[in-house]
Amino acid sequence: MARARPLGTGVSRGAVSELTASRLSLYLRCLSELEGEGATHVSSSNLARRFDLNAAQIRKDLAIFGEFGVRGVGYEVGTLKRHLQSILGLDQTRKVAIIGAGHLGQALADSGGFASGGFRIAALFDDDPQKIGSRTRGGLVVQDVRRLREVVAREGIEIGVITVPAPAAQEVAQRCASAGLRALLNFAPARLTVPAEVRVKNVDLKEHLETLCFYMPRA
Amino acid sequence: MARARPLGTGVSRGAVSELTASRLSLYLRCLSELEGEGATHVSSSNLARRFDLNAAQIRKDLAIFGEFGVRGVGYEVGTLKRHLQSILGLDQTRKVAIIGAGHLGQALADSGGFASGGFRIAALFDDDPQKIGSRTRGGLVVQDVRRLREVVAREGIEIGVITVPAPAAQEVAQRCASAGLRALLNFAPARLTVPAEVRVKNVDLKEHLETLCFYMPRA
Repeated sequence: MARARPLGTGVSRGAVSELTASRLSLYLRCLSELEGEGATHVSSSNLARRFDLNAAQIRKDLAIFGEFGVRGVGYEVGTLKRHLQSILGLDQTRKVAIIGAGHLGQALADSGGFASGGFRIAALFDDDPQKIGSRTRGGLVVQDVRRLREVVAREGIEIGVITVPAPAAQEVAQRCASAGLRALLNFAPARLTVPAEVRVKNVDLKEHLETLCFYMPRA
Repeated sequence: MARARPLGTGVSRGAVSELTASRLSLYLRCLSELEGEGATHVSSSNLARRFDLNAAQIRKDLAIFGEFGVRGVGYEVGTLKRHLQSILGLDQTRKVAIIGAGHLGQALADSGGFASGGFRIAALFDDDPQKIGSRTRGGLVVQDVRRLREVVAREGIEIGVITVPAPAAQEVAQRCASAGLRALLNFAPARLTVPAEVRVKNVDLKEHLETLCFYMPRA
């Protein structure tokens, strides 16, 4: 049986690096795939071989949160998956607001993949009077960004996704912080300055191209 | 001085994991930021502290490719940055085709951030007669996907970015493979089957939300 250390006991979330957190999210996706194939158990070395990961790293990352594996047997796929969901905080639904109803904002708002597994896009905002009141293809209404604070409070929104052009990103981040959002996912190519209690994760879509590029032949 | 091991000597690119490649891309972004601040040298431990990374991991990752640091002095920022660009293959421009001119495809086509630092969006394709011939805001013409092979050959395009809906992704991937593209970045929530010589990287935008979620308070 998995003996999960109660969260918060001996584990300070803030002391865990963002790279570790992103690996936990990766392990979760691997386990979902194995589960879909009907696998019930997996060892760290099989997991590593199958998904091009590092077995020692997997064991080390999971050991931060408890003892999940059984020597010689490995991990029970469904149980470890649920533990990871709980560790990542995905066992509750988080509401998300997208600020910036341009192409990227609309793509994310209507993407079933982005709003699944613990996330729900609760609102989409813009400051363009031409866009306010219109609907995305998926039916989400574009709201006036000046109503952000009110909507965040009423809907219990926790995460802001910033998809405005770079020059507008800092102002939007400040608006999000004053509206009470404590987690921001920033797609704008701009470094944001926010109060200490707000966590920002910058997304650089080019990094995926760079990783891919590594494996390509050189001229 | 950095003594870079000549690429290919003792290092098989295929043997380096995708996670290592993505960390190299991350180090490159950190170095660019330090360079922008005027830093000339940085140690692995300072790099780790500043960007929430692991110092031993940094040293191990870089050691695969040569000896870049000087004990007690650290890495020379500009030199290491250039070495990483070369290791990642970013010292030459790669042409990219985007297949799928929906919101996400148009967002990527017009995003200066996506098409910078070694990448150029050379063409955008769709199969919708309503879209073919139209232009993105940035001025890129949407071309008929049936002309993919011809345009790839003429323009020397190497990378395909798949931004079509999930049900269409497998057919598009096959089309990309037969057009000669050997690297595919797949944004569609679908597992693609491609010939062995084609490398696919699946992008799951939700993983960024998950990593962020880890640090949020629990209900």
